[in-house]
Amino acid sequence: MCHTCQVTSRDISRPVCLLGLGLIGGSLLRDLVADGHPAFGFNRSPSGTKSAQSEGFDVSSDLAATLQRAETEGALLVIATPMPAVGSILAAIREHAPSCGITDVVSVKTQVLDLVREAGLEGQYVGGHPMAGTAESGWQASRTDLFKGGAWVVTFDHAVDAPQGPSQEWIDLWTDVVRMAKSVGAEVIPTRVNVHDAAVARVSHLPHVLAEALAIVGDNGGALSLSLAAGSFRDSTRVAASSPSLVRAMCETNSEALIVALDEALALLQDARAHLSEDPPNLEELVDSGYRSRIRFEARSGQRRQGDSVSPSPISGRPVLRLNPGGPDWVKMLEQAESLGARIEVF
Amino acid sequence: MCHTCQVTSRDISRPVCLLGLGLIGGSLLRDLVADGHPAFGFNRSPSGTKSAQSEGFDVSSDLAATLQRAETEGALLVIATPMPAVGSILAAIREHAPSCGITDVVSVKTQVLDLVREAGLEGQYVGGHPMAGTAESGWQASRTDLFKGGAWVVTFDHAVDAPQGPSQEWIDLWTDVVRMAKSVGAEVIPTRVNVHDAAVARVSHLPHVLAEALAIVGDNGGALSLSLAAGSFRDSTRVAASSPSLVRAMCETNSEALIVALDEALALLQDARAHLSEDPPNLEELVDSGYRSRIRFEARSGQRRQGDSVSPSPISGRPVLRLNPGGPDWVKMLEQAESLGARIEVF
Repeated sequence: MCHTCQVTSRDISRPVCLLGLGLIGGSLLRDLVADGHPAFGFNRSPSGTKSAQSEGFDVSSDLAATLQRAETEGALLVIATPMPAVGSILAAIREHAPSCGITDVVSVKTQVLDLVREAGLEGQYVGGHPMAGTAESGWQASRTDLFKGGAWVVTFDHAVDAPQGPSQEWIDLWTDVVRMAKSVGAEVIPTRVNVHDAAVARVSHLPHVLAEALAIVGDNGGALSLSLAAGSFRDSTRVAASSPSLVRAMCETNSEALIVALDEALALLQDARAHLSEDPPNLEELVDSGYRSRIRFEARSGQRRQGDSVSPSPISGRPVLRLNPGGPDWVKMLEQAESLGARIEVF
Repeated sequence: MCHTCQVTSRDISRPVCLLGLGLIGGSLLRDLVADGHPAFGFNRSPSGTKSAQSEGFDVSSDLAATLQRAETEGALLVIATPMPAVGSILAAIREHAPSCGITDVVSVKTQVLDLVREAGLEGQYVGGHPMAGTAESGWQASRTDLFKGGAWVVTFDHAVDAPQGPSQEWIDLWTDVVRMAKSVGAEVIPTRVNVHDAAVARVSHLPHVLAEALAIVGDNGGALSLSLAAGSFRDSTRVAASSPSLVRAMCETNSEALIVALDEALALLQDARAHLSEDPPNLEELVDSGYRSRIRFEARSGQRRQGDSVSPSPISGRPVLRLNPGGPDWVKMLEQAESLGARIEVF
């Protein structure tokens, strides 16, 4: 349940069908079922399917049958596979569940929207991206409450791009996707796909690239370096332990935006190198600016503190905007929320 | 107390005089006094001194008087000031406590040894560096048990460099420094100053530089980027919240070794950039290698786990060497420990 606006899964107007039961898809299935919402799913690996079935979940390894059931029940399809599988999943949806609304939880959005457009499905698609961990993966890593307090991006490109404006059907789909994210405790942040991809290149994909490089340079120092490595090295390389195939899928499918972020980092590091070679070495520019940026991050978002609050729910650092989907100026409000990184409530 | 070899502060043969009562000096004073060892200290800031006095500690803001007392009592001096103050502290030691043994806890060792040699004090100096956090600073950040299970580097350059070998007096001093570190629960790793500085450039100073750059690039993305930033950005930029003056002091005084590490990182990142521009983008080399390095780090050190052990003390991932200070081949064993990143026990 969303603590600020009381949205529960009962507000979602249709069953939910998870296509993929890894960390994200599996955790979403757990939360929805725990909340009593009708939800079922498909998983390619029979072992993951069996594990989920043995816990009582209504899941299958038969994609066609799962999609046909979704079509019959008018379910909301959630594509929760890694990026490389999205194209074939969309083809199967066109064949077996052509009238279902579709969302996804893939960490890069431009490339998914391109595939959706190629499949001619953009009028029944709303992109999503829950900002949840990637260091573990698979059904066995899934758990309840994974999304609580985290950001869940919901895209709105179709509301801007559709020549006559979006259909009421699409607006209802968009609203259901927002409600699903809120029902599992996430904070919904609306963006367009390219704006999302540029932002996550900075705060998610670049951290992975830097962590990989740092892990290698530390390791190059041999046994002594690894023996002396303490908190700063441990925390800064943590995400290098993520599954290499997931890291590559994220970074490679968002290469254009990642190059922009990486070039900014390279320029800062080359400047730092030049200043370190001066006599005397002087890192004032980098260090003062980095410190201010980090403090701004702590103040602005992410770092929730219970503080002296009597409320049992965490306090969000994000501003909030309330809007009525399809109402006057709602697209303008979505753009405003996007530029503020604001969470939204729908009424 | 050292859990593996039972060293307590009673094994230290002299009182300890802390010169500087910040995070490191203050925490060391707390541990020694808690263990009943005679220890007193100097702090430049009268407010820190007053706080420590109000907690019952035997401290003063009069450097000359503190050093004269150390001379009278034959105390072990621990220089625990930031790097920029080390030169003037050494000058005061020459004047007021010329026969005391000296160690330090400054995070860069070559530059301290250079100053020690300029002051002609190398025959009564043993360098030290406890690998403990820097995100907070000052007496108010000090606490007991800060050093437990962490690495504490103790240098041995003089044992290699002294033409006739080190004096028994120096060997006793070296042994006392090792015992002091072990008595507060640290694992002692012997290195020479330049080897230490090269290693910490990789695993401590480079993480700070990368964290500053990442914090800035994330911040450049504006409110939306900061709003979407989750665990990977938070952990990877954590040390950018460290006091800018401390970060600069570490990095700038170790610029030569840091440039070596930074150049390795820049080469990896430029390669990654090139591979991201290919069609299709391919990060296999960086990601696979970074993953293997991180897993090696987790297996090798730092990541202690209690596991199923019945022992209440943490299990060290570091190999251990036992040696007899001043005994046959002890310098060879120190060099071996250095190359293995091994901790030592003295008998």
